[in-house]
Amino acid sequence: MESLQQLSLRFSEISMFPFFDMAHYLSSVLSLREQPGAMEVALRSPIACWFSAMLCCFGGGILSSMLLAEPPAAFLANTTNVFLASACWYLIFYYPRNMFYKCCSFLPLRLMLAGMKEVTRTWKIVNGVLHANSRFSNAWIIMIAIGWVRGAGGGLISNFEQLVRGVWKPESNELLKMSYPVKVALIGAVLFTLQQTQHLPVSRHSLMLMYSTFLVVTKVTMMLTHSTTSPFAPFEAVLGRMLFGLEQASENIKSDTCTSSNGTGQASKPLIHECNDSPATSDAIERESSTVTRERQTKKAD
Amino acid sequence: MESLQQLSLRFSEISMFPFFDMAHYLSSVLSLREQPGAMEVALRSPIACWFSAMLCCFGGGILSSMLLAEPPAAFLANTTNVFLASACWYLIFYYPRNMFYKCCSFLPLRLMLAGMKEVTRTWKIVNGVLHANSRFSNAWIIMIAIGWVRGAGGGLISNFEQLVRGVWKPESNELLKMSYPVKVALIGAVLFTLQQTQHLPVSRHSLMLMYSTFLVVTKVTMMLTHSTTSPFAPFEAVLGRMLFGLEQASENIKSDTCTSSNGTGQASKPLIHECNDSPATSDAIERESSTVTRERQTKKAD
Amino acid sequence: MESLQQLSLRFSEISMFPFFDMAHYLSSVLSLREQPGAMEVALRSPIACWFSAMLCCFGGGILSSMLLAEPPAAFLANTTNVFLASACWYLIFYYPRNMFYKCCSFLPLRLMLAGMKEVTRTWKIVNGVLHANSRFSNAWIIMIAIGWVRGAGGGLISNFEQLVRGVWKPESNELLKMSYPVKVALIGAVLFTLQQTQHLPVSRHSLMLMYSTFLVVTKVTMMLTHSTTSPFAPFEAVLGRMLFGLEQASENIKSDTCTSSNGTGQASKPLIHECNDSPATSDAIERESSTVTRERQTKKAD
Repeated sequence: MESLQQLSLRFSEISMFPFFDMAHYLSSVLSLREQPGAMEVALRSPIACWFSAMLCCFGGGILSSMLLAEPPAAFLANTTNVFLASACWYLIFYYPRNMFYKCCSFLPLRLMLAGMKEVTRTWKIVNGVLHANSRFSNAWIIMIAIGWVRGAGGGLISNFEQLVRGVWKPESNELLKMSYPVKVALIGAVLFTLQQTQHLPVSRHSLMLMYSTFLVVTKVTMMLTHSTTSPFAPFEAVLGRMLFGLEQASENIKSDTCTSSNGTGQASKPLIHECNDSPATSDAIERESSTVTRERQTKKAD
Repeated sequence: MESLQQLSLRFSEISMFPFFDMAHYLSSVLSLREQPGAMEVALRSPIACWFSAMLCCFGGGILSSMLLAEPPAAFLANTTNVFLASACWYLIFYYPRNMFYKCCSFLPLRLMLAGMKEVTRTWKIVNGVLHANSRFSNAWIIMIAIGWVRGAGGGLISNFEQLVRGVWKPESNELLKMSYPVKVALIGAVLFTLQQTQHLPVSRHSLMLMYSTFLVVTKVTMMLTHSTTSPFAPFEAVLGRMLFGLEQASENIKSDTCTSSNGTGQASKPLIHECNDSPATSDAIERESSTVTRERQTKKAD
Repeated sequence: MESLQQLSLRFSEISMFPFFDMAHYLSSVLSLREQPGAMEVALRSPIACWFSAMLCCFGGGILSSMLLAEPPAAFLANTTNVFLASACWYLIFYYPRNMFYKCCSFLPLRLMLAGMKEVTRTWKIVNGVLHANSRFSNAWIIMIAIGWVRGAGGGLISNFEQLVRGVWKPESNELLKMSYPVKVALIGAVLFTLQQTQHLPVSRHSLMLMYSTFLVVTKVTMMLTHSTTSPFAPFEAVLGRMLFGLEQASENIKSDTCTSSNGTGQASKPLIHECNDSPATSDAIERESSTVTRERQTKKAD
């Protein structure tokens, strides 16, 4: 037991620079490169691509600075880290014959990078919570917000990161349809805030070890099984039913939306688009809704 | 006369917390709920809905913080108010069978909430003007701007509030087509700035009483008569004609735009969309413009 | 040689206020007025038009304030300059019969205004670099960023300036397709940062004279020859080939994009739109791509 304590204490003293930071940059830039259209942007405008990559790598810090009215450009003052991130960006996008990208995509390496990136997430959330606490003492909503934003920066900023690359998808954002990393960062921010305000009877370093382990194990499992379903889905369903009466309601609304989508026009379109991501179902629903329209017209005719 | 002075002094000492603030939150969330698509978002993603509601309730403070480089997240430090607003949001959106929403929609109650909300507007404008004055002494443009932004926050931030809900309407914003609350807040900000810089021979508390009375009476009248025409329309027309020569010009431009819209393409489209809000007139204009196209083609053929 | 030194010293002591500033405002508002749809906005909503004009005139300062967490509204505290800019805006947009606009559009006057505006660019870049240096000492990336943003503010902010006018073009921004002023401001920011960090063996005032002369000469030449090709095009091509292997790659990707555009859907559309600005080529490409689709289908059928 004591050795576990010591292990967690040692773990919490690991420095993120340079290896973990580099894994974070590599992992972020790799997922940027795999976005549709990213490679075209890289070849048309290296500056837009670089800026986009920096938003992916330093998004959390930028967003948190904006929320706390600290200079969002401050991350550029850390020349070493910007260089490291830029080097990762350059090698992944422009190394001849995509050799570097192919290397990094090699599954075992990729798994290691993803695991190390998850560790940096813990550090970021902890630093965010502590920093918010130093600015606004005991304002626990701000502590959660800053911890969350630091931990899930790249995701929350994604709409604007896409805008830099000329892509604009207003109908989807990370608040409307939270991805797994954004959810897990929110839970982490809540946990570390509870720990900070001493509502959680556990030391910070133990919590860091437990949370990091959970993050890494879940991430690696999800990558190996190609699963995209969040491990929180059952809890979410229960919570949603208890707090918001979501289950029945969302079914009601679904049928409501589908039938009423012809009438309401503009405003409900984004929602419809959102729920039919795959073209196949989209077609099906379109057919269905046109049937509904026809039925309505028939009724009117009657 | 002296009793009026005393009345206005007492009036200016009313505390907004908790009842007036609550009326403001209820009124803002009610109008959010009545936006097309808001209920679907509430059932798909309570977090996006909550964030959207907070933007409606605290929009003025957030915008004014951003303009003055103060932490936009600072409103979250006021835990009591955030809780109050969240409770209003929860009850209106998720109370079983919409009972709470239906209660609040009961006309006399709704009128009272709207009236109380207008009173908070006065307080916000006054606080905004005073706060701007304390940051930049005698910079009267900033005083107007901050007073306006505080008083009409929910309206001015609406494009980004909609973006949170997945709706994006770039062709309309509150600067392009100012709604009545935004206009009246601007006038209020100008009046209170003039009072602050002692160009208006009236005490602040008297002005607060007069302005609030005007706001409440106009708002209640507009709600009862279902009128949407601004009471400033005649003044605006006169001012527009005097300062900008708007009347003739805008007629000229209208016919210009309609005929030239086929040629100029992309850029003028949003404008066209803007002026045809109702589908009926839109169809009419489309028909008209297609006639124009045909005429042109005939001319070319000649 | 010494007289050149003295000349550059005198030149660097020129005050921008009021004449050069006025030339900058006039030049910015003139180019705003020539945007498609700007005049319609001016007649529909003078406030949106004024706000848009202020963003054009003070964009650099606003953006740089945001990056450094200084009040973006601070420019409004400089009442004289705001008045000057507003007067320029008013005269250009609303002077009866467009007399003022026509005067300013008179080529020799326009050339002079454009030349003087370029001189203000030098001053802005220098002030930006010095200001960034005073906030973050020796953070040369921030110095470049702030110098750039100050010098090319109107361009970099253009997406949001357009949004005020109800126009939204996410598929193009100044990072994706840099215009000449944005490029030259970036180069200037790099030069003045190198000078500031003493990597460039030249005094600041000499560099200011040389850079300004280059800016003015290039701008006037470009206006007289109606040329839009950047004078840096050859250097860019060499750099692009050396650093990013752009030439062959971009050709490869072009053919790639055209053939794959049918499959990838949504995300690649903006890019396609971007390269086919004129409807004629767009049609051609559409036909071409539909041919490709047909060929593919034939292949599949085989």
